Amino acid sequence: MSVNSRQDRISIAALGGVNEIGKNMYVIQCNEDIIVVDCGSKFPDESLLGIDLIIPDISYLIENQDQIRGLIITHGHEDHIGGVPYVIKQLNMPIYATSLTLGLIRVKLQEHRLLKNSELHEIDSNSELTLGSILVRFFRTNHSIPDCLGIAFQTSLGTIVHTGDFKFDLTPVNEQYADIHKMAEIGKNGVLALLSESTNAERPGFTPSERLVGGHIEEAFQKAQGKIFLSTFASNVHRVQQVIDAAEKTNRKLILLGRSMVNVVDIASSLGYLRLPEGMLVDASECTRFAPHELVILCTGSQGEPMAALARLANGTHRQIHIDPGDTVILASSPIPGNERNVGRIVDHLFEKRASVIYGSSTVTGMHVSGHASQEELKLMLTLMKPTYFIPIHGEYRMLHQHRQLAEAVGVDPNHIFIVKNGDVIDIWASEARQERKIPNGNTLVDGLGIGDVGQIVLRDRKVLSEDGILIIVMSIAKSDNKIVSGPDIISRGFVYVRESEGLIGELQRIARSSITQLQSDKENTDWSDYKLTLKEAIGKFVYTHTKRRPMILTIIIQV
Amino acid sequence: MSVNSRQDRISIAALGGVNEIGKNMYVIQCNEDIIVVDCGSKFPDESLLGIDLIIPDISYLIENQDQIRGLIITHGHEDHIGGVPYVIKQLNMPIYATSLTLGLIRVKLQEHRLLKNSELHEIDSNSELTLGSILVRFFRTNHSIPDCLGIAFQTSLGTIVHTGDFKFDLTPVNEQYADIHKMAEIGKNGVLALLSESTNAERPGFTPSERLVGGHIEEAFQKAQGKIFLSTFASNVHRVQQVIDAAEKTNRKLILLGRSMVNVVDIASSLGYLRLPEGMLVDASECTRFAPHELVILCTGSQGEPMAALARLANGTHRQIHIDPGDTVILASSPIPGNERNVGRIVDHLFEKRASVIYGSSTVTGMHVSGHASQEELKLMLTLMKPTYFIPIHGEYRMLHQHRQLAEAVGVDPNHIFIVKNGDVIDIWASEARQERKIPNGNTLVDGLGIGDVGQIVLRDRKVLSEDGILIIVMSIAKSDNKIVSGPDIISRGFVYVRESEGLIGELQRIARSSITQLQSDKENTDWSDYKLTLKEAIGKFVYTHTKRRPMILTIIIQV
Repeated sequence: MSVNSRQDRISIAALGGVNEIGKNMYVIQCNEDIIVVDCGSKFPDESLLGIDLIIPDISYLIENQDQIRGLIITHGHEDHIGGVPYVIKQLNMPIYATSLTLGLIRVKLQEHRLLKNSELHEIDSNSELTLGSILVRFFRTNHSIPDCLGIAFQTSLGTIVHTGDFKFDLTPVNEQYADIHKMAEIGKNGVLALLSESTNAERPGFTPSERLVGGHIEEAFQKAQGKIFLSTFASNVHRVQQVIDAAEKTNRKLILLGRSMVNVVDIASSLGYLRLPEGMLVDASECTRFAPHELVILCTGSQGEPMAALARLANGTHRQIHIDPGDTVILASSPIPGNERNVGRIVDHLFEKRASVIYGSSTVTGMHVSGHASQEELKLMLTLMKPTYFIPIHGEYRMLHQHRQLAEAVGVDPNHIFIVKNGDVIDIWASEARQERKIPNGNTLVDGLGIGDVGQIVLRDRKVLSEDGILIIVMSIAKSDNKIVSGPDIISRGFVYVRESEGLIGELQRIARSSITQLQSDKENTDWSDYKLTLKEAIGKFVYTHTKRRPMILTIIIQV
Repeated sequence: MSVNSRQDRISIAALGGVNEIGKNMYVIQCNEDIIVVDCGSKFPDESLLGIDLIIPDISYLIENQDQIRGLIITHGHEDHIGGVPYVIKQLNMPIYATSLTLGLIRVKLQEHRLLKNSELHEIDSNSELTLGSILVRFFRTNHSIPDCLGIAFQTSLGTIVHTGDFKFDLTPVNEQYADIHKMAEIGKNGVLALLSESTNAERPGFTPSERLVGGHIEEAFQKAQGKIFLSTFASNVHRVQQVIDAAEKTNRKLILLGRSMVNVVDIASSLGYLRLPEGMLVDASECTRFAPHELVILCTGSQGEPMAALARLANGTHRQIHIDPGDTVILASSPIPGNERNVGRIVDHLFEKRASVIYGSSTVTGMHVSGHASQEELKLMLTLMKPTYFIPIHGEYRMLHQHRQLAEAVGVDPNHIFIVKNGDVIDIWASEARQERKIPNGNTLVDGLGIGDVGQIVLRDRKVLSEDGILIIVMSIAKSDNKIVSGPDIISRGFVYVRESEGLIGELQRIARSSITQLQSDKENTDWSDYKLTLKEAIGKFVYTHTKRRPMILTIIIQV
């Protein structure tokens, strides 16, 4: 993005977050000032065997680090902060975020022992930052975590708006009202380009208020006889507040289960985001001091995560607390696609324990609402901002596509809408905008402590190994005449259980030996690579014919 | 299930199909006559690495094969017929099924070269079979494939009813009316025990008629400008009929894509289940002879299967047919949990091609209805049958649990309802019923040509290999003094890409060498197992500390 003329130029690109849900990272560049927005991670799909986390490839940022003026984080969800420690390790940038978001980032940096060397700046929606030539202002939005920011970048060419994640909740919990007047003012003064999130662009209507969930929670608490277990995302501080409120109204003590629940409640209440009545919080070890109807257990694991608190409770493997017949379990969440089976398994176990379970579609239970704007809210944002150029972000292609159609419906020029892939650059000059360039981008895979050291070859090997295992053929041959001295021995792992398949293994040894003998009689000068290739082919063919499997085949030949 | 008294006894058990969706197989035994119902398969979840298919463990049947009087198949879905060839290989039984079901089974037996030795009996809903001491009658039910049977087993103790899969479709396609009067008559004469399917027991209301889908298909066909692509389950012959009808009304030719679509249409039309107008069917290679608005392409892949026709069309990798801007693509299906991501990916590609796509919730699109009874229909079946004992089958635990509650709501004695796991036996005598015994049961894993040769150890190895790969340490030591002669060499697969990690591999060699040297200096007589253990521990520890990964570690030591 170097300046190749004296004209001012703004360049906008995603390093993560488009054509995917997760690892959000956007680059806003005005001439030689770069501002980075968000630094998320995402979880690998099942094809990325053994990978723990995916973060954006930041080689573009590393190349241009002298131009980076800061990293602004819109809110504290993993798909916006999860990459911070990994990225900061490679490229230290000043980080700007609101108090709760910074609280969550600090925990991550601490875990990676990076806190001391990080430069953290607390901001709020009234802050104004001058980063290079760009004046940065903010507006508060509603979402499923408090203190979310939208961003307005005032540049010499005009204002660029990034919405962050948002919905319009007109009756927000804890009076976290969105800055709708400020949005209107920004829009009225003219928006050159809008980047707006697209998560729910396929969903008609208007997303219900979080407050409705509170009503349903209270109703269920009033009805419940025994203990109440409620599971939701720990970061949904507003929902946690409503659970606390319902517990207070029904005279129940609160027990927190799950590391992230304990962490978030701790951070959020110490920073003033949660109102927790004195004496309400009780340790799990004290649960026997109370009657069942005096307890609410708020726990993690609403997505069916097998190691989280709810799964352990459902399995009966939690050390301190048990689910008894007549207890009520509320799943205050909607399973993310891919998690249904695990959630279903938990409901099975809960019913086996004869608990009363509130689960299933949130339109029926009322126990969950989305944190993202539906179609009418997206149109409202577009209408407020009236952007010249529109770039739908934060979503799979189909969501971006639907968001494009919404923008066209409210009057945005179809030629001024850009659907981008990660790395695509939108260059904007005073008179036009073009989508022509690309910057380096991709998935950086985190596996254990390794960042980016697992590539396609390793993953391909893992895939072969996972499906049919490995067969290792070991033999030693004499230096003098290349005759077999020991072996061939066959080692198998993940292929067949050897004791049950002695016949097959014996047959493989015979084939290995005879194919080597054959090779030696056919050819004067055989070398190792001939041996290896011959063995691999002969064994591979035999195995496939007899089992229809293709294990990885390794040949190890030692010259003695 | 041997008879241990002179009293008549009926025993009922599932070998597959309860606490799961899939691999249905039920055993109905009256004294010494065993009838088997269904023989399904299911697909493995992601924990069963490399496994192709799961079928029931039939060791109980093999043990008691002299008592088996037949295998009755209720309908032609994979979870009811998919296990047939694998089971018949182990245990040949006479098979009874309706014409379409037999047609689908024949294809499978042919593929496995078992057709010649199989004993197939065609029946219809009016058939009456005497199998041992049991008189078997049938009733036709509605479902998402034609010619489905419910079964009434008349025994000396009373009638046992197995519903098969069903819904009540009062306006069925092709006049396939359910035998509701016969069900009423069976119920009126007394039902000792009812086994009824539970797939939609969590769903309130009444499942809509398949005919409604036809209306929506026709409406979409009337509106469409370009080519129409419609993807649905091949076995849903009624839906295929409605696509044919809509094509006829809008003067479009029909192209079939996907092996199972071609197969099913072939079988169903030759057996009279499909009315296919003369000249409507056109080969894919002829598509250029027609204008876009003259074509409907009916294809497989509505669940997002990456190798199926729809995925190839969406990717643009189909050899003969392409999706152009303005074409209409209809996904006439509901994604089965776990398939949403793949379906979403296809919709992304279709939008990229600027097609108009009808997808998403079937309650919005109207392009799909379930083939299974919702709560009101399940209550209707329970009311018709008025069983003394009730065993909900065909479903996950939560579905069986909900079905139990429905049965209680319509007056079945709660003490007469049995929720069973696979292998649990319900024994019924003249005066009582008990759930006390178990018969052998389990998942038999099919991997390639192997049936049941992949067990827990192999799967555990595949899991380790899939997550962190394998590290192999090879060295040779002298017979004379056990000193290292060659190596240690390190081979890695699926762990790290060696060229990028030469430092680590070098370090591992150093550690391997030094730990062996250490061992030799500590101890007079070292043997191979000491070497192997020492190496494994030293390497494993170092690798985990430096990478937080735990690859499988194999040590190969050759004495020379």
